[in-house]
Amino acid sequence: MADHNLDDILDRLDADLPQALDRLMEFLRIPSISTDPAHDGDVRDAASWLRDELTGLGFSAEIRDTTGHPMVVAKTAPGDTRPLLFYGHYDVQPVDPLELWTTPPFEPAIEDSDDGQVIRGRGASDDKGQLMTFIEACRAWKAVNGDLPPGLVLLFEGEEESGSPSLVPFLKANRDELAQSLALICDTGLSSDGRPAIATQLRGLVGEEVIIRAADRDLHSGSFGGLAANPLQILCNALAALKDENGRVTLDGFYDGVEDLSDALRRDWEALDFDAQEFLSRVGLKHPVGEKGRLPLEMVWNQPTAEINGITGGYTGDGFKTVLPAEARAKISFRLTGTQDPARIRDAFRAHIRAHLPEDCSVEFHEHGGSPASVMDTSDPAFESAKTALTEEWGREAVFIGMGGSIPIAGDFKRILGMDSMLIGFGRDDDRIHSPNEKYNVESFSKGARSWAHILASLR
Amino acid sequence: MADHNLDDILDRLDADLPQALDRLMEFLRIPSISTDPAHDGDVRDAASWLRDELTGLGFSAEIRDTTGHPMVVAKTAPGDTRPLLFYGHYDVQPVDPLELWTTPPFEPAIEDSDDGQVIRGRGASDDKGQLMTFIEACRAWKAVNGDLPPGLVLLFEGEEESGSPSLVPFLKANRDELAQSLALICDTGLSSDGRPAIATQLRGLVGEEVIIRAADRDLHSGSFGGLAANPLQILCNALAALKDENGRVTLDGFYDGVEDLSDALRRDWEALDFDAQEFLSRVGLKHPVGEKGRLPLEMVWNQPTAEINGITGGYTGDGFKTVLPAEARAKISFRLTGTQDPARIRDAFRAHIRAHLPEDCSVEFHEHGGSPASVMDTSDPAFESAKTALTEEWGREAVFIGMGGSIPIAGDFKRILGMDSMLIGFGRDDDRIHSPNEKYNVESFSKGARSWAHILASLR
Repeated sequence: MADHNLDDILDRLDADLPQALDRLMEFLRIPSISTDPAHDGDVRDAASWLRDELTGLGFSAEIRDTTGHPMVVAKTAPGDTRPLLFYGHYDVQPVDPLELWTTPPFEPAIEDSDDGQVIRGRGASDDKGQLMTFIEACRAWKAVNGDLPPGLVLLFEGEEESGSPSLVPFLKANRDELAQSLALICDTGLSSDGRPAIATQLRGLVGEEVIIRAADRDLHSGSFGGLAANPLQILCNALAALKDENGRVTLDGFYDGVEDLSDALRRDWEALDFDAQEFLSRVGLKHPVGEKGRLPLEMVWNQPTAEINGITGGYTGDGFKTVLPAEARAKISFRLTGTQDPARIRDAFRAHIRAHLPEDCSVEFHEHGGSPASVMDTSDPAFESAKTALTEEWGREAVFIGMGGSIPIAGDFKRILGMDSMLIGFGRDDDRIHSPNEKYNVESFSKGARSWAHILASLR
Repeated sequence: MADHNLDDILDRLDADLPQALDRLMEFLRIPSISTDPAHDGDVRDAASWLRDELTGLGFSAEIRDTTGHPMVVAKTAPGDTRPLLFYGHYDVQPVDPLELWTTPPFEPAIEDSDDGQVIRGRGASDDKGQLMTFIEACRAWKAVNGDLPPGLVLLFEGEEESGSPSLVPFLKANRDELAQSLALICDTGLSSDGRPAIATQLRGLVGEEVIIRAADRDLHSGSFGGLAANPLQILCNALAALKDENGRVTLDGFYDGVEDLSDALRRDWEALDFDAQEFLSRVGLKHPVGEKGRLPLEMVWNQPTAEINGITGGYTGDGFKTVLPAEARAKISFRLTGTQDPARIRDAFRAHIRAHLPEDCSVEFHEHGGSPASVMDTSDPAFESAKTALTEEWGREAVFIGMGGSIPIAGDFKRILGMDSMLIGFGRDDDRIHSPNEKYNVESFSKGARSWAHILASLR
């Protein structure tokens, strides 16, 4: 594996940090809020800024229109190394409530904090600051080696914060151009104890809405109570029976495809020293629930869940009405791991509800998304290379982690482009993304760029 | 028992029916809607109309002001017979939606129907038509015997349709005047198969609202699902566990005070030939739920219930949010029978919820009323006398029935005035009380007045 003058690249990054921060500030001043049509022009300005920045660096960069906000695609010359796709997004979250910001969200500033210098402003961490770490690594590479790293395709999206409506059509329409051998996604964080981390598995998701109907009207509990079916009771019975006394989900075949932790992952996750009580105490709780006898991290990263996200039915206003309602509604979601099949989970859930339904009642289901878990093939040597590279840069052992949530793009890359993703990011738990006073540590920015230099050197 | 010239009284009632109907029409033309302040004057006009009518008949009648709508109290001379209190209400329900009325609600008319002549108009059945049956019986009694029946106190309320806010204070303030040996309440109906009926037991009610709180904010199910307590799941678990697989309520001591049906009542109720499937089919259902091995009527009249009246929590709007909500709310009510103690039921329910609560979650309860069941002492010979009287008038065996709902005034009379109530009325299931096109069968009006003549003759 060639060294590509890594030490010089790292020195160059350090020397250029003030200018790199200035460039990020300029980028952060563009209020590219993708959910607000009033900012459509700003979103396009951010795309143009990126395109110009990349063109200036020597990328072949273009704005690609979609039916929504545009994509920015940039490429370097092909090489004899693995072709890689890098992904980030240049749109940002809305800023409400504005009055809670200590500085204006689009007037970014470097501030001192107990934790070192931070870059304050909307998008500093999510995701402008993060995506710039990769661009700065490429810039330093070119300054030292004369050319950009070969074999890169960069894809920047402007709709990540508004549900990515154009992404899947764009991936499908440009499959040949975008399908590389591996994707690098920079939109995640360090482990909660501050160590560099590569997310190698993300849970999938099945969302279901259920409406149970009994009588054809609301009934008076004085006249009908004790005789007529109560859809709220049926719903409670069915949802209570979703889990057994140990917290295991009771749906038929639910655990098919769920894999126990490998020894290697177990070592990584145990080493994270995750304190579930401390984690829960931040939201006013103390005691982990869920299946007995599992690591807390295993529960959020490697075990599937069944959660009730909403219930409504009957009289819920002030005071009291002794009604037996005609219907009851609930939204339930399942987080999936391993190779659990979303369609089979959905079917098993519907069968479970129907098994609790009296013959004279009816049920209606609505599907709200279904995607399998993303489990990366970490036998791909790129994962160990990146782990070693991160360990070198941070001076702390890098870890493979899981993620409890879903990052749809990783699944889309796998499904449409046929490639795994390495999710590497440098955000911190306290970055306040999606909230007022978002920030990104200068250390995250600086060591993030240096991390990509390490990784690029190891993969080129 | 004196006859009091009953046959002559009945003849007089028949001969006077056209005039009696005219009087009722006049009364029905007064739009005494107690919930609408715009009708305050009309409510008072209805009270005045009653006072004048009763004074003209020889009662000592007065309007008694309250902080709301007035009461009308009328008396006859004391006698050497049991003192009786008669209760009815002169206020009526609102008339919305007005466009569904086939004739104006306060322009009453006699109409032909498949079921004989009916009096159409707001209040015809609830309760002006019903209370006038008693007044007409008194009128005919006086016409035949020269004096009103002795030992009567009549109490007419003008706030029954708006929650009776002045009633309890009025009963307490006038306890000596109003406490008689038995109350007659005319605000109920015939049995569903058209037989005369005396309601001898009414279920009580306990209402509870419960709010379960877990985290101090809504959580993302990707980050916290599998670790953090979900208050909707806790609520479902607790409410599902309220009943066992046979439909029996599991609360500690819940059935203390619930009495099995007496043989006499079981005979009466079986004779009603109540078809639960037909009853449920009217609201789109088929199969009675609830405890196995009980008569359907036993379930609604003599067995207590636990019903969920409303639940809300989490995301319930369009689409989907994978939230673990901070709180979940439910309203639950219990219908009580026998001597079940509302305070003990409430305590047992709260203990049940707390037993399902993880240590780091909290619960808040709100009390929404609590009243015991009203079970009349049918060994009082007045009940058998009235039953015989009703059987004679209607030519069909009268029955003692239960009621699934609560009629608070019966409990108030017992608690404040120390007397049981005989609930006797002549309404029919299809009278559409509280709905557009309310009606009262002329047969109900005519035979109702005759029924009171029989009953008064037997009790004087």
